[in-house]
Amino acid sequence: MQKKIAILGSTGSIGTQTLDVIARHPERFRVVALAAGTRVAELAAQARTFAVPLVACAAESDAAALRAALPAGTRVASGAAGLLAAAAESGADVVVAATDGAVAFDAVFAAVERGARIAVANKELIVAAGELFVAAAKRSGAEIIPVDSEHSAIFQCLVGEPLERIASIVLTASGGPFWTWERAAIEAATPAQALRHPTWQMGTKNTVDSASLMNKGLEVIEASRLFGVPAEKIEVLVHRTSVAHGFVLFTDGNVKAQLAPPDMRLPIGYALAYPDRLSDRKRLPALEALGAAAAAASATLGFDAPDVERFPCLGLAYEALRRGGTVPAALSAANEIAVAAFVEGRIRFGAIPEVVGAALAGTPDERLTLDSVRRADARARTMALAAVEARSVAPAK
Amino acid sequence: MQKKIAILGSTGSIGTQTLDVIARHPERFRVVALAAGTRVAELAAQARTFAVPLVACAAESDAAALRAALPAGTRVASGAAGLLAAAAESGADVVVAATDGAVAFDAVFAAVERGARIAVANKELIVAAGELFVAAAKRSGAEIIPVDSEHSAIFQCLVGEPLERIASIVLTASGGPFWTWERAAIEAATPAQALRHPTWQMGTKNTVDSASLMNKGLEVIEASRLFGVPAEKIEVLVHRTSVAHGFVLFTDGNVKAQLAPPDMRLPIGYALAYPDRLSDRKRLPALEALGAAAAAASATLGFDAPDVERFPCLGLAYEALRRGGTVPAALSAANEIAVAAFVEGRIRFGAIPEVVGAALAGTPDERLTLDSVRRADARARTMALAAVEARSVAPAK
Repeated sequence: MQKKIAILGSTGSIGTQTLDVIARHPERFRVVALAAGTRVAELAAQARTFAVPLVACAAESDAAALRAALPAGTRVASGAAGLLAAAAESGADVVVAATDGAVAFDAVFAAVERGARIAVANKELIVAAGELFVAAAKRSGAEIIPVDSEHSAIFQCLVGEPLERIASIVLTASGGPFWTWERAAIEAATPAQALRHPTWQMGTKNTVDSASLMNKGLEVIEASRLFGVPAEKIEVLVHRTSVAHGFVLFTDGNVKAQLAPPDMRLPIGYALAYPDRLSDRKRLPALEALGAAAAAASATLGFDAPDVERFPCLGLAYEALRRGGTVPAALSAANEIAVAAFVEGRIRFGAIPEVVGAALAGTPDERLTLDSVRRADARARTMALAAVEARSVAPAK
Repeated sequence: MQKKIAILGSTGSIGTQTLDVIARHPERFRVVALAAGTRVAELAAQARTFAVPLVACAAESDAAALRAALPAGTRVASGAAGLLAAAAESGADVVVAATDGAVAFDAVFAAVERGARIAVANKELIVAAGELFVAAAKRSGAEIIPVDSEHSAIFQCLVGEPLERIASIVLTASGGPFWTWERAAIEAATPAQALRHPTWQMGTKNTVDSASLMNKGLEVIEASRLFGVPAEKIEVLVHRTSVAHGFVLFTDGNVKAQLAPPDMRLPIGYALAYPDRLSDRKRLPALEALGAAAAAASATLGFDAPDVERFPCLGLAYEALRRGGTVPAALSAANEIAVAAFVEGRIRFGAIPEVVGAALAGTPDERLTLDSVRRADARARTMALAAVEARSVAPAK
């Protein structure tokens, strides 16, 4: 069944990326309402593309132009009433809260009260009044699912976990442009220095907040509200490459982390599809998926791909797995013989994969049963012993 | 309610560490059966310490000595029948399969058939006949939970997730002693070189398997069986510091990882307590929890703790979170004013935390309501504007 989606703030960065995700999954999602501020032409174009029945803009003076640009029968509203209609009267299953500041406060609150899922990209909403939203959600059964990458990371790490076993939550931070600066230099930093990547107005605010780490401070508060964890259990770690977005440390000593390339459509898609996941990404080798570039991920996270040429045993194991049946049992048994022979000094290290390979070559493809697996084990040992004999560099003790 | 635990292979490394975990949680776990091979004195001591009603050894000739060493009424069995009694007749809720090789095959299979949870530390069992165990578990409702660190990592990453959305599984590998060697040198390696840390017999086999990467190959097969994922979706990455044990890449582009210090009691405790988690670990700062030493984790994973002295905004956010009520709203509002003033060139960067701090100082501790949060927002903006005025280095535009 299609989920019905309302987007508050549809012409902003999160709003347009949400529509991008929805456009790729018309079978899963349907847009039932769009609300935006003053970019009316863009809003009208979105509404036409997605055949949206309810569209809201900020100013009543823009409503006429909007109405004229949309098919007859489209409901057009404005102001606070428009936001409320989009969030609540639209009957949306998921309300994407992506407006700036406090403007959508009442509308989002109404959506929570009627039990809709809130995909929340509006940090201020949760920082200022998260406790009210969470309490209302508890009463109505609404789900509040974060859309920014750090909180989506924590949410994903907590799926299926006992929340009372959280030892601490770790949010990662890029560190911003002043991370390596001296205190005096930071205090005297100019706007040009803070705004290395000057963008639009909201971008400016966020960029300065990144430089001062206030951005991360607000996220700490948000995490506390969303996950019900006190300040002393929330840590911040600076992680310049931004591959890992968050960690959860559990009371049993285990740690879970979430990693992803820096693409907001990932946490957006997750918030829409949860508890399912979308499946629209091209499969990448792990090293690439873990970071932008394989080299960067390798250097910063300390991972390398293994070399099957120098380590043929790994390739043999994959071969056994692909063939299936009793071949894995033969691999395991032959390896046991080969390793023992190597330890006793009878064969070279390089003969281990040779011995195992000989046993695999002599193992037929057959169905796995309680009996066939025992026979395969015995047969592989016999073949491996013969292969050891043929390669022996020293007599058996 | 206490879970009833049976341990097959109780005197081995995994067996003794399982008892160590159980000893710390007498309210949660009770040992109902122990089975071991030939270390009868050690087995008897374990049985006395944990008041175990059913004890099994390998040889019937050892049973008399075992009986003599145990309280009257203890059931003593031996051989295959002993293992079967421990695994099945004990009525254990969880059977820890920690014997070597294929000796416990039938006993573990019987436990699966009666629906017990299997905490499986016996790699060969799953490599050789994992499909049979998994199929039997599907019929009976038994859970098969891996105990080695790599598969426990993957299992933990998959909790609560849609299994059909796995893009790939990544197992990490230490790389072993020959990781940086040339192919010819590897092939000619001596047992002494392969066994840099010679331990007991089973240790020897595992150590050689680590050097040849066969260990990782067997784990690939095990992962395929346990998680129902084909060979082409299982990758191996060499990760010398062994902080991360495994990754799951999902079809939506998100990645989850599990990390832990190298302590087998963590995956053991997880397999016993699942779906809950234990809570016996001292809470550590994240950098320490992520690795053995903070310095090592920082260097290899690229994480650093932030400096609140140079970045006071982060400390202010924590302060707001601790005070609660409307203080977070005041923080957010005052920061908005301070950032705007900085961007306009009216205050130094160092004045941003001063302005926010002034607003926090002027915000009373009050209960959060829909009304109080609006008032706090407005009040904080007023205070912040005054604080900006007092620190102004340039006239307002």
